[in-house]
Amino acid sequence: MAELKNLTKRGENYSQWYNELVVKADLAEQSAVRGCMVIKPYGYAIWEKMQRQLDDMFKETGHVNAYFPLLIPKSFLSKEAEHVEGFAKECAVVTHYRLKNSDNGQGVTVDPAARLEEELIIRPTSETIIWNTYKNWIQSYRDLPILCNQWANVMRWEMRTRLFLRTAEFLWQEGHTAHATKEEAEEEAVKMLNVYSTFAEKYMAMPVIKGVKSESEKFAGAVNTYTIEALMQDGKALQSGTSHFLGQNFAKAFDVQFLDRDNSLSYVWATSWGVSTRLMGALIMSHSDDNGLVLPPKLAPIQVVIVPIYRGEEQLAQIDEKVAGIVSALKAKGISVKYDNADNKRPGFKFADYELKGVPVRLVMGGRDLENNTIEVMRRDTLEKETRTCDGIVEYVEQLLEDIQNNIFEKARKFRDASIREVDTYAEFKEEIEKGGFIYAHWDGTAETEALIKEETKATIRCIPEDMDATPGVCMVTGKPSARRVLFARSY
Amino acid sequence: MAELKNLTKRGENYSQWYNELVVKADLAEQSAVRGCMVIKPYGYAIWEKMQRQLDDMFKETGHVNAYFPLLIPKSFLSKEAEHVEGFAKECAVVTHYRLKNSDNGQGVTVDPAARLEEELIIRPTSETIIWNTYKNWIQSYRDLPILCNQWANVMRWEMRTRLFLRTAEFLWQEGHTAHATKEEAEEEAVKMLNVYSTFAEKYMAMPVIKGVKSESEKFAGAVNTYTIEALMQDGKALQSGTSHFLGQNFAKAFDVQFLDRDNSLSYVWATSWGVSTRLMGALIMSHSDDNGLVLPPKLAPIQVVIVPIYRGEEQLAQIDEKVAGIVSALKAKGISVKYDNADNKRPGFKFADYELKGVPVRLVMGGRDLENNTIEVMRRDTLEKETRTCDGIVEYVEQLLEDIQNNIFEKARKFRDASIREVDTYAEFKEEIEKGGFIYAHWDGTAETEALIKEETKATIRCIPEDMDATPGVCMVTGKPSARRVLFARSY
Repeated sequence: MAELKNLTKRGENYSQWYNELVVKADLAEQSAVRGCMVIKPYGYAIWEKMQRQLDDMFKETGHVNAYFPLLIPKSFLSKEAEHVEGFAKECAVVTHYRLKNSDNGQGVTVDPAARLEEELIIRPTSETIIWNTYKNWIQSYRDLPILCNQWANVMRWEMRTRLFLRTAEFLWQEGHTAHATKEEAEEEAVKMLNVYSTFAEKYMAMPVIKGVKSESEKFAGAVNTYTIEALMQDGKALQSGTSHFLGQNFAKAFDVQFLDRDNSLSYVWATSWGVSTRLMGALIMSHSDDNGLVLPPKLAPIQVVIVPIYRGEEQLAQIDEKVAGIVSALKAKGISVKYDNADNKRPGFKFADYELKGVPVRLVMGGRDLENNTIEVMRRDTLEKETRTCDGIVEYVEQLLEDIQNNIFEKARKFRDASIREVDTYAEFKEEIEKGGFIYAHWDGTAETEALIKEETKATIRCIPEDMDATPGVCMVTGKPSARRVLFARSY
Repeated sequence: MAELKNLTKRGENYSQWYNELVVKADLAEQSAVRGCMVIKPYGYAIWEKMQRQLDDMFKETGHVNAYFPLLIPKSFLSKEAEHVEGFAKECAVVTHYRLKNSDNGQGVTVDPAARLEEELIIRPTSETIIWNTYKNWIQSYRDLPILCNQWANVMRWEMRTRLFLRTAEFLWQEGHTAHATKEEAEEEAVKMLNVYSTFAEKYMAMPVIKGVKSESEKFAGAVNTYTIEALMQDGKALQSGTSHFLGQNFAKAFDVQFLDRDNSLSYVWATSWGVSTRLMGALIMSHSDDNGLVLPPKLAPIQVVIVPIYRGEEQLAQIDEKVAGIVSALKAKGISVKYDNADNKRPGFKFADYELKGVPVRLVMGGRDLENNTIEVMRRDTLEKETRTCDGIVEYVEQLLEDIQNNIFEKARKFRDASIREVDTYAEFKEEIEKGGFIYAHWDGTAETEALIKEETKATIRCIPEDMDATPGVCMVTGKPSARRVLFARSY
């Protein structure tokens, strides 16, 4: 049961609003294991909708699913020099494979005799175990490309966790592809970034900026990391998906070579790309308001809820009958609809609950509506209500769902666009960064300057954007030449 | 690329035939981590079809998906006395959460400073962590029932592993439900057993015997374990799915009580139920033959393959055009079809490959077919070929897929039925058990006799079947009274 009362307002404390909303809307909660969450049925239903859509898009672009082991031999992590620095440090280590009864008769204890020869790591990401596998799959150019994806759980032992945004265990998909040429691999990395941005914008209604990461911010082991960056309502950026061109780094680390058409032996080119349950956090923070979730209709588990207001069983029976026709007509159009005529909750309670849960459209039918052949329509995004005739209501609701989808995207896009400012001096940058949003500024391209900016302002380079002005200038910090402006923000 | 040659024949060595087939048909392979498998794309595509169908059936019966943590605090396992005996022993134990660079500069080593206060276990099954969670979800009868399922990976540290049949890590679904009454929970356990048997018979084309496990064979922590048992071609039984009535055992272990309508406080009643990637092994061993896989059309990733036989580009172009119409008409009927006109493999190679992969229907079009408006049709289950007119071919194929689905079920059912024998003496039992199959015999109901039979014959009680003769008699071993015959077999 959702807890309706006392949702903190965004303006008071955005962070607390988020934490409360995730729990009160029955999306997820902390588990007994530090940093690991329970994804509750309502939250999981949204994630399933995301998964299904992404999976369809992966398959349309020629990918297939597979499954690779949860555990990775410790030594694998060390094989790619940069990768180990990025991932080997904070991870769960399996050292034993058996428990035994405690000597004191209380509970169980680790059996020291069952120590593994080599420790196993719970995958923080699967490049190493997958490239160790691909080695046996690839002999010649005829075996390429390999276009695999897996849906899996992964673990990164984060010290400070937040539901969906940063958890020790999370769910994700990771694509791992192998190619005969550099060009093909680069094309793949960009293609999948575009799949992610299409998904974010068309389904999550969340505008994103596409670009490439700086050297310091790229994936450990990648040549290039492409990213989509979204803006949350509090002015902080959220990295929402990444696609990596891995060059031949993992092929070299795991010695994966192929015989080309010309009989020459070459290392294989690679990409990897992923999105995770972090997208749930992005979705929540992009659209929701002080009344609760606002969900894009395309990802809402319930798109339309219908609530009756009635006096007595007889009137309820009449409303039930009238509504049944609307329900079946909506379902025939592929719209997910719930008719909530449960008698153990009052309409007011139901209204607040479905608002909290972000159901895009609410229809209410009362006694007078029955007489007048009308129904009350409320749209969750604007909370606007109107009473309409029941004639054509199904077509109206169908169109309304589309309007809501577009409206919340446009609202988020305007907010995001208005937040992007060009800044030319570091002093101005320091002032502007406090206001949140994206700042487009010149940078000399060095890791030192990037680190200094991060230390002094907590802002990082979110990306070098694909579709924005790329004229040269001078670095706002050092005055040295800058190839082009890059996009800064504070981020999740 | 599938390895076509040298598949061991079933009659020579069934076990080796299975092991080779799983690898040669590109279903799965061993990974670098002992006992953990890689599920390859073709194998995973079959598993995805199983998942999708089961998931639909779970939802139709009112269940929702959720996700619970991978890791379980060690102490949780000890809370239910029988459960810990069954599951705590052979499991992967996480003791540390960090690696550090080795002192010798080579690779990484476990950081002794990052030892967990309490060790965490990779879930072998999730009753404990889920009931610890349900404790917070359940206060009153209004919160019941809870009907959750999760799709997840689990680990049991098996010493002797075989692809799909017994692996350290496997994929499964586990349903965990909570109810206000004993009757409702028992009904749920039986309902889900029926979902499993329907799935096995209608989709996997695998006949199963439904029944209840003996005390010795039931799930650790259950009051009753219901099972579906299938018969493999080598005469061994395979437990294919189980549904457990857990009574109040886990509610008591985790102190989960609810306030009932009459204001009394009661412990919650529970069930759990699961099927796993083990079903892949069952599917393979139910139908496949010396040429490779035989897949039921309802679970085949490719239901129809079309191969052209041509002389020259011009003829190929004509065949391409003719086939295109057939392909789109098949697709319009929801049939998955692949047209393989790749020019780098000869038709004979393709034929053997698709037979190995178990594609139910193969269509071949050659030059003469083009002239005669005919096409060759081969069905994988019987390997029968015929040449038919292209007129009405789509409807013919649609019907043929249904026929194949029914035919392989009937074939498996006849084989299974013929294998069930009633036996009255232990001497006869010992003789008959060597021939494989199910033996229906009287047993005195004691664990001692059951253990003796297992030790002397390697046969176990597969179940006390639901739909078979239940008249009393005398135990074949001890001569003591027997309530009814039970079903014995050697098993996987």
